[in-house]
Amino acid sequence: MKIAIAGSGAMGSCYGHMLAQAGNEVVLLDNWEVHVSRINEFGLKVNEVGTQKVTKIPAYLPSEFTGTVDLVIIFTKSLALIDMIESVKHVMNADTKVLCLLNGLGHSETLAKYVDRKNILMGVTVVTASLSAPGSVGFTNYGKTEIQNLDPSSEAAAREVVKVINDAGLPTEYSSNIAFSIWRKACINGVCNSLCTILDANMLELGMVPNVRSLVLTVCNEFAAVANAVGVKLDGEQMTDYVSTFLTPEFKGAIHYPSMHQDLIKNHRYTEVDYLNGYVARKGRELGIPTPYNELITLLVHGKETVLRVQ
Amino acid sequence: MKIAIAGSGAMGSCYGHMLAQAGNEVVLLDNWEVHVSRINEFGLKVNEVGTQKVTKIPAYLPSEFTGTVDLVIIFTKSLALIDMIESVKHVMNADTKVLCLLNGLGHSETLAKYVDRKNILMGVTVVTASLSAPGSVGFTNYGKTEIQNLDPSSEAAAREVVKVINDAGLPTEYSSNIAFSIWRKACINGVCNSLCTILDANMLELGMVPNVRSLVLTVCNEFAAVANAVGVKLDGEQMTDYVSTFLTPEFKGAIHYPSMHQDLIKNHRYTEVDYLNGYVARKGRELGIPTPYNELITLLVHGKETVLRVQ
Repeated sequence: MKIAIAGSGAMGSCYGHMLAQAGNEVVLLDNWEVHVSRINEFGLKVNEVGTQKVTKIPAYLPSEFTGTVDLVIIFTKSLALIDMIESVKHVMNADTKVLCLLNGLGHSETLAKYVDRKNILMGVTVVTASLSAPGSVGFTNYGKTEIQNLDPSSEAAAREVVKVINDAGLPTEYSSNIAFSIWRKACINGVCNSLCTILDANMLELGMVPNVRSLVLTVCNEFAAVANAVGVKLDGEQMTDYVSTFLTPEFKGAIHYPSMHQDLIKNHRYTEVDYLNGYVARKGRELGIPTPYNELITLLVHGKETVLRVQ
Repeated sequence: MKIAIAGSGAMGSCYGHMLAQAGNEVVLLDNWEVHVSRINEFGLKVNEVGTQKVTKIPAYLPSEFTGTVDLVIIFTKSLALIDMIESVKHVMNADTKVLCLLNGLGHSETLAKYVDRKNILMGVTVVTASLSAPGSVGFTNYGKTEIQNLDPSSEAAAREVVKVINDAGLPTEYSSNIAFSIWRKACINGVCNSLCTILDANMLELGMVPNVRSLVLTVCNEFAAVANAVGVKLDGEQMTDYVSTFLTPEFKGAIHYPSMHQDLIKNHRYTEVDYLNGYVARKGRELGIPTPYNELITLLVHGKETVLRVQ
């Protein structure tokens, strides 16, 4: 399959590597010039679950690639989604499928403004990748990817993409309810990322906060109320139980700071809060559902962006 | 007048100094042994609005003072109020007035459990004092103090205390609505102290946060709703206008970090949030008034206390 990775940072490069290694015709598209030129000069250096590899994959600035592809996999930050879609429109033809594996809520609505619904595939992945230097990435597990077509007519196309990614060594399943998986992951991130960022805490420290269950429940209940109103069954208490498992010493990742904390507190970059708590607050307002907790969390995260002089 | 200062930190020592200087018979009571012994050995060193002075005032650990007084002025932190009242009970007789000048809400209810209502005077002051070393304090302006009796029968007693403090050089007025002044100050602190603490920001930085008016308004509206329910007229929009004036470059104090920020972020001490936003959330629950914003702010400040390992 001819595949363009639109946004070839840590995650995009790792997916690109796996897909190219399996024989697909992959191109990496990214706006970071140094990264693109290093990949072309030295190959993409990948630490694939502990094994160091170098893969030859052509990389381009989005405007400089001229072919069209069968599949575009979008792997930007949420904030860059619109810019990225606009800059890769020319690589799509009428049948090109667009798979969105971004974290956060609202991306299918955004995509549908630019791409025919029947070509949109939505997904969730639990792979976590990192970028150590331009041209050099790594990931520590093959994770699990779930994919579903946005339009009911496109199930066969979604299943074909599932097979291609699965065959490339990344365990991937067809999901019959991807909206639930997306909301569930967003809810986990809306709790862990946002609260750890506001409190400057890791997950374990968040778990030690007095009344942490009340705190988590208030956020999850609002996610659930808005999710239910848009037709996605989510239960606030169940989500709270689930999220709570990540905030205990038994979860070995609990000593880590979530990605939003790294973005904002460590690297002074804008966060994705508008696609997590901010989306719930915005959608809640549209639908007349009170979401004070998520509204305040969103205001506070944006407040921290200002105080830390993010630019 | 025979006066005991119960809690002779920065504020208490400065009031004690002014009252002693004017000829009142003052004793300073405090639990900090080094502070007490330095005052007794070297006198109380006071920077009185730019002039360095030394005043001889006897200082005691509360349990070691044996006389009774006409007036006890309580100047502890909110968290220490109950302990202090219990440790100075023996200096009060049936007519001793107790003046509470603490920041925060709910103190009159606490006091009324230990002291006859007719002896309770409530007040608000805008003096800000600092303690540079044991035995050494200072204040930069004489501020304005307002006082009112809790029980209607005690107006004369309140007016007498107003006169004593006023005569000592601290401009003081009898207030006909001290509850309003207390709530207004608590609301300002509930916004500025708590939000600057959560955001690790000074007042000017808080003022630069996007949608800061929405943020302030949500907090003030809940203060107003609860205040109105307990018979204190407070308007959320008006309070927001008022608080906003402290968050601009035109307010020269805006570059300072509020006291709660200093307590928690700088000195890793417990905050008074339970007597500000926490009181509004608690009282709101009692009265069936929704206060999600103040509830979340309270949880987050306590969260920060945990993360910073306050003990």
